[in-house]
Amino acid sequence: MSQAPAAPDANKDDSQASATAEQAAYRSALSADLEQFLGAQREVLEEVSAESVPLLGAVHSLAKGGKRLRALLNYWGWRGAGGEVLGEPAVRSGLALELFQSAALIHDDIIDRSDTRRGAPSVHRHFSNRHAEAEWFLDGSHFGSSAAILAGDLCLALSEEAFTSVGERAAYNTRARAVFNRMRTEVMAGQYLDILEEVVGPGHEPERAVVRARNILRFKSAKYSIEHPLAIGGALAGADEELLAGYSAFSLPLGEAFQLRDDVLGVFGDPEITGKPAGDDLREGKRTVLIAYALSSGSAAVRKQITEQLGRPDLDEDEVASLRSAIEESGALATTEALIAEHTEQAFSTLAALAVDEQTRSALEFLAHAAVTRTA
Amino acid sequence: MSQAPAAPDANKDDSQASATAEQAAYRSALSADLEQFLGAQREVLEEVSAESVPLLGAVHSLAKGGKRLRALLNYWGWRGAGGEVLGEPAVRSGLALELFQSAALIHDDIIDRSDTRRGAPSVHRHFSNRHAEAEWFLDGSHFGSSAAILAGDLCLALSEEAFTSVGERAAYNTRARAVFNRMRTEVMAGQYLDILEEVVGPGHEPERAVVRARNILRFKSAKYSIEHPLAIGGALAGADEELLAGYSAFSLPLGEAFQLRDDVLGVFGDPEITGKPAGDDLREGKRTVLIAYALSSGSAAVRKQITEQLGRPDLDEDEVASLRSAIEESGALATTEALIAEHTEQAFSTLAALAVDEQTRSALEFLAHAAVTRTA
Repeated sequence: MSQAPAAPDANKDDSQASATAEQAAYRSALSADLEQFLGAQREVLEEVSAESVPLLGAVHSLAKGGKRLRALLNYWGWRGAGGEVLGEPAVRSGLALELFQSAALIHDDIIDRSDTRRGAPSVHRHFSNRHAEAEWFLDGSHFGSSAAILAGDLCLALSEEAFTSVGERAAYNTRARAVFNRMRTEVMAGQYLDILEEVVGPGHEPERAVVRARNILRFKSAKYSIEHPLAIGGALAGADEELLAGYSAFSLPLGEAFQLRDDVLGVFGDPEITGKPAGDDLREGKRTVLIAYALSSGSAAVRKQITEQLGRPDLDEDEVASLRSAIEESGALATTEALIAEHTEQAFSTLAALAVDEQTRSALEFLAHAAVTRTA
Repeated sequence: MSQAPAAPDANKDDSQASATAEQAAYRSALSADLEQFLGAQREVLEEVSAESVPLLGAVHSLAKGGKRLRALLNYWGWRGAGGEVLGEPAVRSGLALELFQSAALIHDDIIDRSDTRRGAPSVHRHFSNRHAEAEWFLDGSHFGSSAAILAGDLCLALSEEAFTSVGERAAYNTRARAVFNRMRTEVMAGQYLDILEEVVGPGHEPERAVVRARNILRFKSAKYSIEHPLAIGGALAGADEELLAGYSAFSLPLGEAFQLRDDVLGVFGDPEITGKPAGDDLREGKRTVLIAYALSSGSAAVRKQITEQLGRPDLDEDEVASLRSAIEESGALATTEALIAEHTEQAFSTLAALAVDEQTRSALEFLAHAAVTRTA
């Protein structure tokens, strides 16, 4: 047997090992930067009043957690474009992206009426709990939402403050800034389409439901969570148009597969693993691509059932199970899984040919696998 | 009679006339820039989906209105520091400040449950009205708040996008950027203190009520509405430390007088002129410096009446009138008016000695008069 095939494998193992070690070092640098950045902000709030510090505290608690998917994609986008190991611009832009994600989650949880986030009370619940514990006056729920609106605003402003502090590479006339700006506008627009879809109701133009749901998925999630972080990291390191186009060709299908996986987990995920009650997305009435397929390709009976039951907060376990079966029998689950497989295949074949070093490729492969094969 | 006094007066008239003309030209430039900037944003939203455009439409409708106080202060701060007539950086930073104000108002109106703003439905009401008119599903009020949270977020992001697009003068390491960043954090912190004060209730440490109320006023309003816009304009034009210190010595007391006047109008203003129902601030339970004085210096009976009635949405006209009388008889109105007079005097005497050209001084005098003598 020739030794030739062994050499690339050994190299691949080396690439993986060094990518893993470097990624761990990046995570540490990111956490340290978060503490330093929010520590400086804390002083500003203390100058206003010690009583205002809990507003930042809520942001801090949330931003400390999370999988750091966006920061890591940003980092490997930077490295793949020749950025230096643990370069400060990539640490600070990673912080900016994680703070932006935190801001979006804080406001999203008010909008979705979610009580938990990252294993703790969501920010609006945190503040309404404070209200209850201290036995304060007036409407504690309204106080919770109001404080969370302000915490999200603060976090959004801090995200941008962090991004600007990257310096010249993120200045007004740079590619990185242009992507950062577009990302924010697209996410707000995508979220608006999402809440609009819910209130317009499942009976609205079901033949266009899939088109609309895929558009929402693209702008609310795929571009923002996967494509733009990678592009921002690359742009900060001076990636050329060809590399940025390659990044997009890899990351946009990956982002779509990532969100489609999320949609499937929201309906069919194991509550023991996802940490969310079974059928939560059904009770919330989330209008996902999965649901859109069921509406457009399901029988009249399935459409009727979804139209009547989706978004009812009081669905019991039997009704949830019945809705799940209906979605599965409509073929929507199989169609969605096929779409995930197709996008995943597209992402990985693009990645295999991407003009980046083997360590970056290995790291992106690892992140891509985690994004599309997760169970929670 | 000597001719001597006449000459300065004639000069002063000239300064006033030229300031007025220049200010009108600035307003036009600002409006044109707003249309151009939001027009470009509209294209981004159209690329996402035509259905997302109403999110920007709500921002646009709101941002078109307003007195432009912050933009104008920013402009004269720029001019007083030697910035060129109608300089682009001052137009664009004025736009950024007006968009920031719009973002704050959109979220503030959700928090305060205000149904109207600038003579039209507030943004959350605008969206809940759309929901009702279209007979959409689910909770229209929650849809309205959710859409307004997103509209405010979009507006906040656009404010910063506009500020960054000023270019080098507003880059990461500049004085103007530092003030812009601090302004945002301070406003969020000040607003949090404000809602906290309401829920903690009028019985909480009444002896410190005035200290707390003046602190909220300073950070939530005075610095943000008056001091920081002037400083940002000055910093963009390269003002030295001495001039910026002079700006603050003028503008902080002016800002405090401005907000105290607002507080008085909220309780004692003529509904025919303010456009708000009499006693609205009493029903909302606003914890102003005026109320703080009444709590700390009023009789036990006054304290009891305020504690029981402030923030009750169902106060009738007689109860409002009775609360007004109690506040007046406690001496709180007279104390607040004296404080307004003191701050106003301090602002004008500082302005008289400020190292700026006569036209800028004249313009700032005019804005200062409008800020503290308004009736609506």
